Amino acid sequence: MDIKFTPVSSVGEFGLIDRFKSFALRFPNSNVVTSIGDDAAVLKVTEGRLAVVTTDVLVQNVHFDTSYTSMKHLGRKAAAVNLSDIAAMSALPTAAFVSLGIHSNLSVEMVEEFYDALTSEFGRFGCTVAGGDTSASPIGFFAGITVAGEVEPDRLPTRGGARPGDIVCVTGDLGRSHAGLRVLQREKSRYVEAGQPADFSPDFEGYDSALQKHLMPEPRVKLSREITDKIKLHSMIDVSDGLVSDMLHVCKASGVSASLDEEFIPLDPITRRTAQEFKEDPLTYALYGGEDYELLFTMAENDFQKLYSLEGYIRPIGRIDEGEPNVTVKRMNGTTETYRDFPSYQHFAKRNKL
Amino acid sequence: MDIKFTPVSSVGEFGLIDRFKSFALRFPNSNVVTSIGDDAAVLKVTEGRLAVVTTDVLVQNVHFDTSYTSMKHLGRKAAAVNLSDIAAMSALPTAAFVSLGIHSNLSVEMVEEFYDALTSEFGRFGCTVAGGDTSASPIGFFAGITVAGEVEPDRLPTRGGARPGDIVCVTGDLGRSHAGLRVLQREKSRYVEAGQPADFSPDFEGYDSALQKHLMPEPRVKLSREITDKIKLHSMIDVSDGLVSDMLHVCKASGVSASLDEEFIPLDPITRRTAQEFKEDPLTYALYGGEDYELLFTMAENDFQKLYSLEGYIRPIGRIDEGEPNVTVKRMNGTTETYRDFPSYQHFAKRNKL
Repeated sequence: MDIKFTPVSSVGEFGLIDRFKSFALRFPNSNVVTSIGDDAAVLKVTEGRLAVVTTDVLVQNVHFDTSYTSMKHLGRKAAAVNLSDIAAMSALPTAAFVSLGIHSNLSVEMVEEFYDALTSEFGRFGCTVAGGDTSASPIGFFAGITVAGEVEPDRLPTRGGARPGDIVCVTGDLGRSHAGLRVLQREKSRYVEAGQPADFSPDFEGYDSALQKHLMPEPRVKLSREITDKIKLHSMIDVSDGLVSDMLHVCKASGVSASLDEEFIPLDPITRRTAQEFKEDPLTYALYGGEDYELLFTMAENDFQKLYSLEGYIRPIGRIDEGEPNVTVKRMNGTTETYRDFPSYQHFAKRNKL
Repeated sequence: MDIKFTPVSSVGEFGLIDRFKSFALRFPNSNVVTSIGDDAAVLKVTEGRLAVVTTDVLVQNVHFDTSYTSMKHLGRKAAAVNLSDIAAMSALPTAAFVSLGIHSNLSVEMVEEFYDALTSEFGRFGCTVAGGDTSASPIGFFAGITVAGEVEPDRLPTRGGARPGDIVCVTGDLGRSHAGLRVLQREKSRYVEAGQPADFSPDFEGYDSALQKHLMPEPRVKLSREITDKIKLHSMIDVSDGLVSDMLHVCKASGVSASLDEEFIPLDPITRRTAQEFKEDPLTYALYGGEDYELLFTMAENDFQKLYSLEGYIRPIGRIDEGEPNVTVKRMNGTTETYRDFPSYQHFAKRNKL
């Protein structure tokens, strides 16, 4: 096997862009008229549709730790988290724009691994990488990604449309991504504490589905469209900050409160088992853990039966009420917890809750 | 006067976003349906128009040096360089998306200065900041900016449409931004060499228009529309990398060559005077300096007279010919220089030409 380390300086900025272009062009979208290689990309817009645009930034040592995230996982996840925002609008992604800050300690091969995985993940959903900007970064690796998509005006769910009487539903299960993160963090600590030996072997046995959920979350683009094919949603958001924070975003935007039932919040067995090992409450993984990239939505109760035929494990977990924006969680032990403010990770916060 | 230093940690991520939102909402655009505060922004698209999207990244110590660039200048320029790309497509900007990586040594006041100037500059052109992402950055300040706009299909100029026989025109004057940069660099060197004394006073007397051009370039959004109101352009690009590189981009994309005449390349007296002081050739400032953000375009020769009535100092500087993509510059001393490859600044290059 021929393994190379090509310094980025040996191909230069325009050389790198040429390589990016060939990765991106593997996945054309018929609405992208002009792609990488002009001052701006040109997109055809369809009559009777709205454009939706989302943007996210990933920064080394803030959003990811390269000691346990490969460039492939990172590229795929960078695409997935943006696609998840598009899914939260029930839109179809059209074009993505990728700005990279590249530190000189990265090889062309590493940058290409990232870009290959990123363009492939977008391509899986019919989305073309149509532009970007590539810069040196004296500091660390970062990626700023913007995705444009389209949605029919009458199926657009927003954060602000939840109404008293709505039921609250969620796709998939929650907290599993955080379980995966805890395992990754534990194995990294073990490695560091052992003096970073060359023969160190992390113990990931049996945690596959949690690691997979954390490193390769599946954006719910298809399921979101299937849901709005069948019913009119009142509100929707993706679960990126944790169930409480994201529910609270909806409550604040809609001027309503939400009460959720622990009994119905879907936790995977691996999430329960991992939390037990860490002597932590598995529900907190769902409530504050974040990065599950499932869909959280509200709708008229009568409509729920129309979703029975859909795959993707859709569960009602609570109800929307009148009142000051807050989120109440009824625990199975009979207690209730009420959140009026965001409990989960905030950038620039003085301390992290988890 | 009440001057404060508020640490970003004291307002938190969501507090910062609330402040950003109030800055952004000063400049609404009727095509922006949903702005900051949802998973994605929603844009109304006009029938018979194409969407154009451009993206640019600015990194501390790569694109700017905070020792001589204030946060206000930086915010304004961050908007201007993206608007210039929109102008190069003869489009009108609609919505901007701003991702920031914020180092903890920045105060809320500094970040707000940046954001105020940025949203105001976009607002001056009818463009709303409709989304973004805000992150901690352990490393340095960076901004990734994406702008969406609209253009009628029949007036869209691209890089690939230049034809043999076209005349090449440029707006404004070239090289002045680089003259401003040279003065800024010189004064910084003087300051450093003097031991960074507290009472150091940089000598900027008489260089105002060069410093202004470098720190506050004027994007040619309006002039671009006026030009395509009157004539059909064959190709257009904005001069960000320097005249040679940007002309070469057009030649490569169009499969043509270009010959430019030193005699006609517009240089401001301040550019000539500054280059003389540095014992440098002022033409090199225009050819390789970059960051002028003027428009470079090609069209049928007969159409040129239709532009006489426009303000903005439009000059023909050369001609498009058949042949291998290259750029030839005829010097006034009778020599010619031919460029087949990009001479100007490239990220990751081993050395910089200037």
